[in-house]
Amino acid sequence: MLDINKIRADFPILSREVNGKPLVYLDNGASAQKPQVVIDAITTAYSHEYANVHRGLHYLSNLSTEKYEAVRGTIARFLGVADEDQIILNSGTTEGINMVAYGWAMPRMQAGDEIVLSVMEHHANIVPWHFLRERQGVNLKWVDTDATGALDPQKVIDAIGPKTKLVAITHLSNVLGTKVDVKTICDAAREKGVPVLVDGSQAAVHMPVNVDEIGCDFYAITGHKLYGPSGSGAIFVHKDRMAEMRPFIGGGDMIREVSKDAVSYNDPPMKFEAGTPGIVQTIGLGVALDYMMDVGMETIAAHEDDLSHYAQDKLNGLNWLTTQGTTPDKAAIFSFTMQGAAHAHDISTILDKKGVAVRAGQHCTGPLMEHLGVTATCRASFAMYNTRDEVDALIDALELAHDLFG
Amino acid sequence: MLDINKIRADFPILSREVNGKPLVYLDNGASAQKPQVVIDAITTAYSHEYANVHRGLHYLSNLSTEKYEAVRGTIARFLGVADEDQIILNSGTTEGINMVAYGWAMPRMQAGDEIVLSVMEHHANIVPWHFLRERQGVNLKWVDTDATGALDPQKVIDAIGPKTKLVAITHLSNVLGTKVDVKTICDAAREKGVPVLVDGSQAAVHMPVNVDEIGCDFYAITGHKLYGPSGSGAIFVHKDRMAEMRPFIGGGDMIREVSKDAVSYNDPPMKFEAGTPGIVQTIGLGVALDYMMDVGMETIAAHEDDLSHYAQDKLNGLNWLTTQGTTPDKAAIFSFTMQGAAHAHDISTILDKKGVAVRAGQHCTGPLMEHLGVTATCRASFAMYNTRDEVDALIDALELAHDLFG
Repeated sequence: MLDINKIRADFPILSREVNGKPLVYLDNGASAQKPQVVIDAITTAYSHEYANVHRGLHYLSNLSTEKYEAVRGTIARFLGVADEDQIILNSGTTEGINMVAYGWAMPRMQAGDEIVLSVMEHHANIVPWHFLRERQGVNLKWVDTDATGALDPQKVIDAIGPKTKLVAITHLSNVLGTKVDVKTICDAAREKGVPVLVDGSQAAVHMPVNVDEIGCDFYAITGHKLYGPSGSGAIFVHKDRMAEMRPFIGGGDMIREVSKDAVSYNDPPMKFEAGTPGIVQTIGLGVALDYMMDVGMETIAAHEDDLSHYAQDKLNGLNWLTTQGTTPDKAAIFSFTMQGAAHAHDISTILDKKGVAVRAGQHCTGPLMEHLGVTATCRASFAMYNTRDEVDALIDALELAHDLFG
Repeated sequence: MLDINKIRADFPILSREVNGKPLVYLDNGASAQKPQVVIDAITTAYSHEYANVHRGLHYLSNLSTEKYEAVRGTIARFLGVADEDQIILNSGTTEGINMVAYGWAMPRMQAGDEIVLSVMEHHANIVPWHFLRERQGVNLKWVDTDATGALDPQKVIDAIGPKTKLVAITHLSNVLGTKVDVKTICDAAREKGVPVLVDGSQAAVHMPVNVDEIGCDFYAITGHKLYGPSGSGAIFVHKDRMAEMRPFIGGGDMIREVSKDAVSYNDPPMKFEAGTPGIVQTIGLGVALDYMMDVGMETIAAHEDDLSHYAQDKLNGLNWLTTQGTTPDKAAIFSFTMQGAAHAHDISTILDKKGVAVRAGQHCTGPLMEHLGVTATCRASFAMYNTRDEVDALIDALELAHDLFG
């Protein structure tokens, strides 16, 4: 079981107040807070161990390179990837998915080809495909969720047709908390010869992930949601897809030789990592993932599962609140609207006065909002450091908002 | 005059030892060290003020957004840009130049079109153009330096022909220290209707830069060389070019509306900033630039000019050393080879034993190495915190290397 007091003590920001109230940080879906070990790793790197990586032979450069490169193995371990050369380090999911869109999809997709998506996708897993639609006539084929927010994997599989060149799907909805059975989708897609990209931005935060078992072709994660620094991240790319993928960002480090007339590229994964990388934030991400693995992903999932059920029961008791997404095994992410006049933004402003940080808006999911028939929701998204008391604080603040606006 | 003791005390890493000797860090061309104020800003952000930007309405999100967005103005001030909406925040020069290559050049260049480059360019300002050569038949037209490493602006201007669609040129060579008269080039290019991209990665570190005066269309900088965090940076894009440029990276924040069938984009510069950005490293970059401006760019330039002349004299005294780049007003960046058997890598290893950190290799400048007729050089590159004593330490270490290998 998770030692919640110890965990909370590890995150310095959690002891601060906001608007004279203890901070209740429930905006983890947008970005998670950082444990002291991550902050310390950054300080140590810049204060005592900093230099550029890969290109130097001096002591600090070697030290920095060792610490930076070790993170590739940490990420592979975290994601259940046996071969760490299938991990490309980057600045987060947005860069990762754009790399696949520009480097893998763009040169091999023609007008009329299809990409299958769920209606729950985040804009990071939509806009790069809209680029291909706008620029080369690719069609986007959408699969809807049911009334509970569940996504039937068979519906995704059935959507794969002879023109389908890629399935791009989230592993866990950032709005509904719905988990998607991506393994079943990948198994069927593989038989049809269609690669699958999984957006793991949320899933990797909340549950154990084993990419080799899932059998996907691409799996993107983002460091700042994983208790790591902003501007850190990675994408798993299966070695067969890596071999097919052309370089995306051009610059130093990703080349073998550059002359006036020609360029040759480094071996993967370096071929896909250009320029001076996010050295220190990547080192920080490694520390964050080690922290998560030390706590234990099963332990984190069990703690958040308890919070999820507790919160769902409490929210169900508020009959003036409409909660979106009610699948039984959902992650602790709750999107809701208040019946009556109150706009999501107004609710979040009231909650903020009570120290409760939630997000209001579209949560970068335009098509889902349309599908749900709402213009915006309030979202409370939990992390490993949240407590039942904080659920109570959320409920109290919602009741106040209801009193004011109801 | 620069208070060197105060400056040095501001950079914690400078007081450490390497291999039992005081660190003499002369690898600033690869990446600069960070002052305590930058490290403190990162710690404060993560410990007390962290949340995602733009999308929240709660206290921490607003605070984080304010601090993050303020950096746009700081960068504009630092670069002499009156309109801060012409500044796009990113992860550094490599991303900036790739954005121009993919977003501006790619949709408007055809087979046979030309890009004019100098032979001194860094791979970050070469490989994105090689992509256009490989993928759509664009020709790269190279302008050589003379024997001193100087680049005659008239030779660049003369290279602009009817097929030229872009001039892409460094403001200061990362190998030779040569400064380029980019204003003269921009004035002439503008008359010919050809946009100019200036790679300011090195120049902005060592001398006052006024982009509005230069009159270029694009000016790229990278935060980690500017005493800021890794993974931070920006590019100035003239508003006329911004209006022509299509979005590069797709995701959250850069959109206005996303539906299943359509996407519309945010106004510039947000249109070109996708996903959760490098929030904390950008805040750190703002602090770094404020630090530089507090010291004063003229003061920094004068201090480094003194170091440059002192070092040049000392290096000239070593008649077994060949120094590349001897223009009289060059920046304090020295690339050299030792006559005889010693490889650049061996020299840097010996120097490292004496605590002197220099870089050895091609410095991401394949075409320049070919032009100079060398396979690699050792490079000592100075920063505002370096001293004449450190020049002496370099010379002593070089003499030791010469004794060993000579």
